[in-house]
Amino acid sequence: MDLKIFDRMESEVRGYVRSFPVVFDQARGSLLFDEAGKQYIDFFSGAGTLNYGHNNPVLKRRLLDYLGTDGVVHGLDMATSAKKYFLETFERVLLKPRGWKYTLQFTGPTGTNAVEAALKLARQVKGRQNIISFTHGFHGVSAGSLAATANSKFRQAAGMALGNTTFVPYDGYMGPDVDTAAYLERLLDDPSSGLDRPAAVIVETVQGEGGVNVATWRWLRQLETLCRRHDMLLIVDDIQVGCGRTGSFFSFEQAGIQPDIVTLSKSLSGFGLPMSLVMFKPELDIWKPGAHSGTFRGNNLAFVTAAQALDSYWTSDAFATETRRKEELVRNWLENLAYSYPAAGLSVRGRGLIQGLVTPAEGGLANRIAAKAFEYGVVIETSGAHDEVLKVLPALTIEDQLLERGLEVLERSTAEILGSQGNGKVLKFGGQRR
Amino acid sequence: MDLKIFDRMESEVRGYVRSFPVVFDQARGSLLFDEAGKQYIDFFSGAGTLNYGHNNPVLKRRLLDYLGTDGVVHGLDMATSAKKYFLETFERVLLKPRGWKYTLQFTGPTGTNAVEAALKLARQVKGRQNIISFTHGFHGVSAGSLAATANSKFRQAAGMALGNTTFVPYDGYMGPDVDTAAYLERLLDDPSSGLDRPAAVIVETVQGEGGVNVATWRWLRQLETLCRRHDMLLIVDDIQVGCGRTGSFFSFEQAGIQPDIVTLSKSLSGFGLPMSLVMFKPELDIWKPGAHSGTFRGNNLAFVTAAQALDSYWTSDAFATETRRKEELVRNWLENLAYSYPAAGLSVRGRGLIQGLVTPAEGGLANRIAAKAFEYGVVIETSGAHDEVLKVLPALTIEDQLLERGLEVLERSTAEILGSQGNGKVLKFGGQRR
Amino acid sequence: MDLKIFDRMESEVRGYVRSFPVVFDQARGSLLFDEAGKQYIDFFSGAGTLNYGHNNPVLKRRLLDYLGTDGVVHGLDMATSAKKYFLETFERVLLKPRGWKYTLQFTGPTGTNAVEAALKLARQVKGRQNIISFTHGFHGVSAGSLAATANSKFRQAAGMALGNTTFVPYDGYMGPDVDTAAYLERLLDDPSSGLDRPAAVIVETVQGEGGVNVATWRWLRQLETLCRRHDMLLIVDDIQVGCGRTGSFFSFEQAGIQPDIVTLSKSLSGFGLPMSLVMFKPELDIWKPGAHSGTFRGNNLAFVTAAQALDSYWTSDAFATETRRKEELVRNWLENLAYSYPAAGLSVRGRGLIQGLVTPAEGGLANRIAAKAFEYGVVIETSGAHDEVLKVLPALTIEDQLLERGLEVLERSTAEILGSQGNGKVLKFGGQRR
Amino acid sequence: MDLKIFDRMESEVRGYVRSFPVVFDQARGSLLFDEAGKQYIDFFSGAGTLNYGHNNPVLKRRLLDYLGTDGVVHGLDMATSAKKYFLETFERVLLKPRGWKYTLQFTGPTGTNAVEAALKLARQVKGRQNIISFTHGFHGVSAGSLAATANSKFRQAAGMALGNTTFVPYDGYMGPDVDTAAYLERLLDDPSSGLDRPAAVIVETVQGEGGVNVATWRWLRQLETLCRRHDMLLIVDDIQVGCGRTGSFFSFEQAGIQPDIVTLSKSLSGFGLPMSLVMFKPELDIWKPGAHSGTFRGNNLAFVTAAQALDSYWTSDAFATETRRKEELVRNWLENLAYSYPAAGLSVRGRGLIQGLVTPAEGGLANRIAAKAFEYGVVIETSGAHDEVLKVLPALTIEDQLLERGLEVLERSTAEILGSQGNGKVLKFGGQRR
Repeated sequence: MDLKIFDRMESEVRGYVRSFPVVFDQARGSLLFDEAGKQYIDFFSGAGTLNYGHNNPVLKRRLLDYLGTDGVVHGLDMATSAKKYFLETFERVLLKPRGWKYTLQFTGPTGTNAVEAALKLARQVKGRQNIISFTHGFHGVSAGSLAATANSKFRQAAGMALGNTTFVPYDGYMGPDVDTAAYLERLLDDPSSGLDRPAAVIVETVQGEGGVNVATWRWLRQLETLCRRHDMLLIVDDIQVGCGRTGSFFSFEQAGIQPDIVTLSKSLSGFGLPMSLVMFKPELDIWKPGAHSGTFRGNNLAFVTAAQALDSYWTSDAFATETRRKEELVRNWLENLAYSYPAAGLSVRGRGLIQGLVTPAEGGLANRIAAKAFEYGVVIETSGAHDEVLKVLPALTIEDQLLERGLEVLERSTAEILGSQGNGKVLKFGGQRR
Repeated sequence: MDLKIFDRMESEVRGYVRSFPVVFDQARGSLLFDEAGKQYIDFFSGAGTLNYGHNNPVLKRRLLDYLGTDGVVHGLDMATSAKKYFLETFERVLLKPRGWKYTLQFTGPTGTNAVEAALKLARQVKGRQNIISFTHGFHGVSAGSLAATANSKFRQAAGMALGNTTFVPYDGYMGPDVDTAAYLERLLDDPSSGLDRPAAVIVETVQGEGGVNVATWRWLRQLETLCRRHDMLLIVDDIQVGCGRTGSFFSFEQAGIQPDIVTLSKSLSGFGLPMSLVMFKPELDIWKPGAHSGTFRGNNLAFVTAAQALDSYWTSDAFATETRRKEELVRNWLENLAYSYPAAGLSVRGRGLIQGLVTPAEGGLANRIAAKAFEYGVVIETSGAHDEVLKVLPALTIEDQLLERGLEVLERSTAEILGSQGNGKVLKFGGQRR
Repeated sequence: MDLKIFDRMESEVRGYVRSFPVVFDQARGSLLFDEAGKQYIDFFSGAGTLNYGHNNPVLKRRLLDYLGTDGVVHGLDMATSAKKYFLETFERVLLKPRGWKYTLQFTGPTGTNAVEAALKLARQVKGRQNIISFTHGFHGVSAGSLAATANSKFRQAAGMALGNTTFVPYDGYMGPDVDTAAYLERLLDDPSSGLDRPAAVIVETVQGEGGVNVATWRWLRQLETLCRRHDMLLIVDDIQVGCGRTGSFFSFEQAGIQPDIVTLSKSLSGFGLPMSLVMFKPELDIWKPGAHSGTFRGNNLAFVTAAQALDSYWTSDAFATETRRKEELVRNWLENLAYSYPAAGLSVRGRGLIQGLVTPAEGGLANRIAAKAFEYGVVIETSGAHDEVLKVLPALTIEDQLLERGLEVLERSTAEILGSQGNGKVLKFGGQRR
Repeated sequence: MDLKIFDRMESEVRGYVRSFPVVFDQARGSLLFDEAGKQYIDFFSGAGTLNYGHNNPVLKRRLLDYLGTDGVVHGLDMATSAKKYFLETFERVLLKPRGWKYTLQFTGPTGTNAVEAALKLARQVKGRQNIISFTHGFHGVSAGSLAATANSKFRQAAGMALGNTTFVPYDGYMGPDVDTAAYLERLLDDPSSGLDRPAAVIVETVQGEGGVNVATWRWLRQLETLCRRHDMLLIVDDIQVGCGRTGSFFSFEQAGIQPDIVTLSKSLSGFGLPMSLVMFKPELDIWKPGAHSGTFRGNNLAFVTAAQALDSYWTSDAFATETRRKEELVRNWLENLAYSYPAAGLSVRGRGLIQGLVTPAEGGLANRIAAKAFEYGVVIETSGAHDEVLKVLPALTIEDQLLERGLEVLERSTAEILGSQGNGKVLKFGGQRR
């Protein structure tokens, strides 16, 4: 396939096109097709943006209807019928049943813009500049969010010092014996720890980019308690693992916590359309009119599909239940795989349909497995500080048959890569299913 | 119309909905329709996002075709057929005819994200942190861009100090007798001016948000010369006034300058879909793969309409010529209006189809005229530090008849507001046309 | 003379030793003696630290007495008899006669530490981070003061970005036709100027390091008015030109302004001993106990000599009158000199006994004159962004005969340097006196 | 005694005068005398500034001789005989015998100014802005040093955000089971820890202000190894515990490490005169001439006494040996004291003649003991985040008899305070000596 125009015209900053060097042309559900017609199973889902699959037919129908009537496409932050319906649906489907009160802010339709708004609001409300963020956290690459993003690849690209953020260890970062919430408490309680009093803590319940690191419910509750005790706001960045990814619409629901601020994006529109949103407790709404602006806050096509996604998938528990069933399936498969190569040092972690196959930090194993899987027709990415975690991130709507086919490819790819390393005997394919 | 859900659910940060308190439902060309079916002439164009009008039928056709074949909608920065065609079209229609070489970077699809990328690149290339920006400049509200945005309403919302930027006076800021480029030169030449050596200068050729301030071609050329002499990059932020707004695709073409970096967004997709792009000279491309990421960099629906917009409007001079003809029409009308009220202190400035009717800073005159015009069915906004500039920003594709109708409304609204102030006799409507 | 140990052991950062490459051994009044016994007239006075000359006998007598009785030498910020007497004397000699109320803070005994304290206090009082400083301003080189210091030589040495300060043009910076106070007012009044609301303005009434730039009384009063109108504190950094240098104890007295905060150091102890002090209006005293600490705040030897200096020189007008008489003498001589070389582009500026002979920015003329003068036995330095201003800074106590001898050397040195350039005929020495 | 003038004229920022509300008049060796003639044993030593006692007669003799001959008192950074002799002595007494090569930089004569210079140099050399500092670290209160100082009392007084520093836990901070050097290594090795690559690590071997926290030799060696492996400079801030305080001239000697940069001040002049110095490896000397300036860098009286102190105390091991003998004495006494009140939760830590009696964080016990001791004629201070550590800091030259008398007072004061709390039976005084 001809990628010359990309090489010629596009900046070296391009990334994923290097891992998947084909020209994709069409997409349906969990399948991608390149220009040559070759088919790929999508285990990447736009890094969590396509929880309902590509060109989801129900959402697409609504979208075409809307376009057909010349509905407003671009509306800044003016009121439109589409936005109105989205607000009503969000309230009806998500907030009311949970008994929650949250105010919504539509920001520029990127995750990073939602995070920027969240951090601004927290700083304004508390009148403090410092924000606590976590090792391996990822919150975006515009300067405000970037300051809270741990990865040095992104940070160095800023070309300037990034401040007003203090990184502390995420759950498990210091090994199983150190309670990192207790360490944070120590820093907060100690007036001479060097920690400037924070306005807020920003956290992902599962760190997607950071290597599928999973915070325990207990740790999240400790964090909420610390926030209350030290008058800090709790911000859950649910951009990658919200919208159903972990088996409930909000990833933090099972922890029983109530964040002060929540950021949503990626799968929010349900159709891959740019959209972002900040939810916060009504009493925090000290925004002045127009103080956080943005041209594309009113991406009405996204409002249309987002409302439809809520209506289609979140009015009952069925979809969440189904996601957890698939979690089981993926989890078992991956654990079986890890178990089959005791010498390879593999392990599995994740929550819902974000599951990581963790390989040793050195050696590039995960990248080689991903590359091999792509040869066999599966699009899958790695994450973690050393790209050492193979991240299984299928659409939540994926059919079992495709899911298993994809997992078989992973298994085979792992086997071939490990086999060529002499890491153990090759598995008989297909035999280890639930 | 029922706006209760907006009041109940949406943050106080909402802005334009306050100026235009109706629910818009449909839109075609230069007309908006609210839920009650009332029709409005759009003199705002999504703050410069809808240069080709709402639901432009040619672009919409392409969009529906693409959706009909299940083209890839969301592609991160992977290669897709739609992106490929956009790249080819951009090169063929814009770069080749001008004999230009620029590398493209697709960023998160907000203008501010393009600016963030541009500033990062400049800082990396030059190894310096300071950026020169201008009084009344607007470049977005994420922390990096916000640091270069002059308006205190936005800056204060950051809740933290914004650094690494030095503001200097824009062309004309110090009155007609002071050459602000010479002042900047003085600061650069003087090792004890307090100005830390900048990596780049970021400038709008016409400051849209800042009050339709127009830089002369001469001043822009002086600026380019200063950049060369002091080893700074020249960044033109063409987000609001690029894509044809001033009568050429790029707003700086007539100045004969060649910026090192150009940011584009707003009308780039042509259909109001979120899309952004940074162009820079190929030798500046020191980006590391993946160092500036973003979920929605690959908004393929936008690629589709953006390529079509270039094909439809920019393969010949006709569209630009037509824009300049309309500029004449608007300009004459506004100058006539200003001339008719000598006591009111009105004046006109602008370039292409961004024209400002400047009112005195105090008194809220422009806002009152805009509010009156909205009553009469014209959507128009104000800009400037004191909202003192009525900004006429119709679609470039607006029919003459609608344009004149809108201008008549402006005239009548001005007359009524000024008349009620006793500022002069009311004009006979319709009489002052070319 | 043997300077080898300095070359071997001392950092390249050493500066003045390069201009005056001898080993000084003894000093009395306005005379310095090197190890070989050669005598030099001191026209530099420790950059304004030795207003009462070297080893002033009255002060020395007090110092020896104090040491003789084992008075406390180092007292942190504990109460001592010496400090008590200084406080009483300061109140009696300086504050009471002027009817002023100021609270005193003793900081670490460097000028920069006093500035750091002043900036901290201003930021705390106003709850804002930005400080306005001026082109060519110098306030010290620790990070807080350095941010307000204009010279790039010092700024670049920080190795990091310096923020929270905005530089604006000093009186006269933009030429005689631009009122820079009006420009600052414009920036303050304009909510979109990019100027973050400042906590304070810090200014020198005469910029010593910056090139003997003199602010007019009118401009200083405008500045005070702006501070009142915009709720900013006015900080006068009187470290170099206070303590009598300009003909009154405080350099701003004749302007009739009342700064909110004043910093003093250099000649404060009167004997060259390290001492610094911040004066501020009592209502600003929101300091928490111990919140600005420092080991040498209680340099009691300095308290002893400082109190004696006040008692000896400032209980009547005589000393100030005498200083203004000498100002006349120096001024006339320098103007005569400038006048004698019309082709050389010389001019004179200054106030009191800080007078600058301004030479063209290019060509290093001032440095060459200073080097020549040193050959002839006068220690004199240059200042300004290009070292283009020969700074005449004798002790205020200098005897007329030595003063004239030094001026003659200057004249002869200028003549020789200019003569060798063919810049005009050599003056007959000694002829142009008042 | 009359402290009214202090209350009336001095800022609320004054600190120690509140703990010791008398007017000190004279001082000799380890004795202070107030205006009423009451005598106090000095267990505070100017926070480590008076290692050789007050008005040390040998040093005073030299000082008087120097003043008697009108030696240069104030010399900026010009060469003087006194400075020359200091350089020679420093090289002869300290560097040569250790086989060390270091370049010296004289900074403004405050500890904080030396730290500012050290941090600047490190940032310039490495071209990076971040500095690693430690929990409970204290390095001064000017903005650059303050950013590396942990205590929130000082930090909040800045009135602005302090950046470019990352705090990590000091040795022992996370309890006996966590190796904090290993944690730091983890952060450095992990490209996604959020730790921006540091230019340097700044550390005190014993944290004086921070609560007499003692780093083990092993931990200091680990730190040095980390610095080498990660290309960071190692800065030892030896301002409080250098100059012999811990039993060797430099506090880090016994660790066998060779810092890249060392800061000295406090007891450097030996007489309580302001003086500071930065030592660094010659290859780091990339300073440009004059790039770090300061009026009082050349405090020649301090050079005179500093050189004499080196000659008098550091040409043999005797003084260090004697210090370690006294350490034993103090240590035993304090441990005995702690042991005698098992219910009071006391413990002892320290190195050399800086020994802390650690009390529980809550309850203000240490402050009450110190206040009681002052009543009984001992000047002693507390340190630590909650002022919970009674800091025993006598002159190194203290006579045994005075030392024991002071310790007896401590014991009695402790007994009375604890006794009144019912914390255990009161000791028989004087009985528990070695």
